[in-house]
Amino acid sequence: MKYQLYYWPSIQGRGEFVRLALEEGGADYIDVARESGQGRGVSAMMQLMDAKRVRHAPFAPPFLQAGRLFIAQTANILQYLGPRLGLAAKNDAGRLWTHQLQLTIADFVLEAHDTHHPVASGLYYEDQKPEARRRAADFRDSRIPKFLGYFEQVLARNPRGQHFLAGSRLSYADLSLFQIMAGLHYAFPRAMAKSARHYKRITALSQLVQDRPRIAQYLASERRIPFNEDGIFRHYPELDAN
Amino acid sequence: MKYQLYYWPSIQGRGEFVRLALEEGGADYIDVARESGQGRGVSAMMQLMDAKRVRHAPFAPPFLQAGRLFIAQTANILQYLGPRLGLAAKNDAGRLWTHQLQLTIADFVLEAHDTHHPVASGLYYEDQKPEARRRAADFRDSRIPKFLGYFEQVLARNPRGQHFLAGSRLSYADLSLFQIMAGLHYAFPRAMAKSARHYKRITALSQLVQDRPRIAQYLASERRIPFNEDGIFRHYPELDAN
Repeated sequence: MKYQLYYWPSIQGRGEFVRLALEEGGADYIDVARESGQGRGVSAMMQLMDAKRVRHAPFAPPFLQAGRLFIAQTANILQYLGPRLGLAAKNDAGRLWTHQLQLTIADFVLEAHDTHHPVASGLYYEDQKPEARRRAADFRDSRIPKFLGYFEQVLARNPRGQHFLAGSRLSYADLSLFQIMAGLHYAFPRAMAKSARHYKRITALSQLVQDRPRIAQYLASERRIPFNEDGIFRHYPELDAN
Repeated sequence: MKYQLYYWPSIQGRGEFVRLALEEGGADYIDVARESGQGRGVSAMMQLMDAKRVRHAPFAPPFLQAGRLFIAQTANILQYLGPRLGLAAKNDAGRLWTHQLQLTIADFVLEAHDTHHPVASGLYYEDQKPEARRRAADFRDSRIPKFLGYFEQVLARNPRGQHFLAGSRLSYADLSLFQIMAGLHYAFPRAMAKSARHYKRITALSQLVQDRPRIAQYLASERRIPFNEDGIFRHYPELDAN
């Protein structure tokens, strides 16, 4: 199966969680909006979002075309790809659990985004800086420990070993947790340095993901867009710990 | 199958999306934290959240026990229940689509919540009122029209008719959209009254859901917790339109 991924071409954003799964799974895919030519580029993505021929219209990117299927919502795309790319459990209970973890990751990602956009995603950061300072402080002091503490405990309690979140093999949720850690270290380097010792299992998992041959190759390639201040994880020093 | 739902007993909250599906599906279930006695009540819920015997620990309520399975994350629970309660499509493409819609509804619900808690869910509303005013204005003026406009279009484009979001039968996503509309009318009565004419199909769907015999019976019962200012949808007149 050849996949077409549609996502904004200049940020990692939510699309990155899908890209990591496609890369680790060795999938044949096109990152459509990053290419040029007929039927490619951002304009092609925007046209598709409004096209009447797409019965299952997405609310927003990312979305994935797989044959005649159009699938949107990051966690839904990953749920679809997981078993096809060898990145999900083979039984129903394991798949539900992996998806549950992914949905919790999605909540965490949204909260990371809202640190710099607590008032309105349609406004500039510069228009909501005081609010962002308050929200980011709460995110650093309460929410990061709550979410990472949870995932650390999930690893500690995994009856199949502490290497992966679900079962004894790498899943798309592990890739996504790596991506969150990379993003948090980029956006909040001081806060993350202070708390690293509490998240040893997550840190080990992140390293393991980073060292997977296909992921390592991807991260070193031009396909990996650098973090920047248009994405979800932004480095604004004033939002980090002192 | 007898289900145990675990959720806060004094609010509709996210648990309500599950309750509506269980009610419409005629499921045999216990709303555990609302009952008293051994193994029931809020304390039983809190104990389970931390119990080491629960391998798949939830990050937060709601969660559902179905035999030996523990399932958390509202959309994940609904995805599990859907086919079992006759509230989801029978084919994979239809199920993915229904779940995609549910995840978009989940995003919308979170944004509705954040109108009164834009800084931190751990602080009181009174501690973030100026921020809430800004966020609520954007929610009313930009986000409600964007989300409801999307769902109105989904209904208009459904090739199986405009009554339901997905396919030709009622699904859990329809129940959830009804719940959002009920919540928005409670929280933002003035804003919703002004814009009602733009959402005729959604309004018709909401009425249809409300008139389903089991839902009508549920809404009239004591099992339906009234909206209140501890839940997701809160009526603070200062956050509504003028």
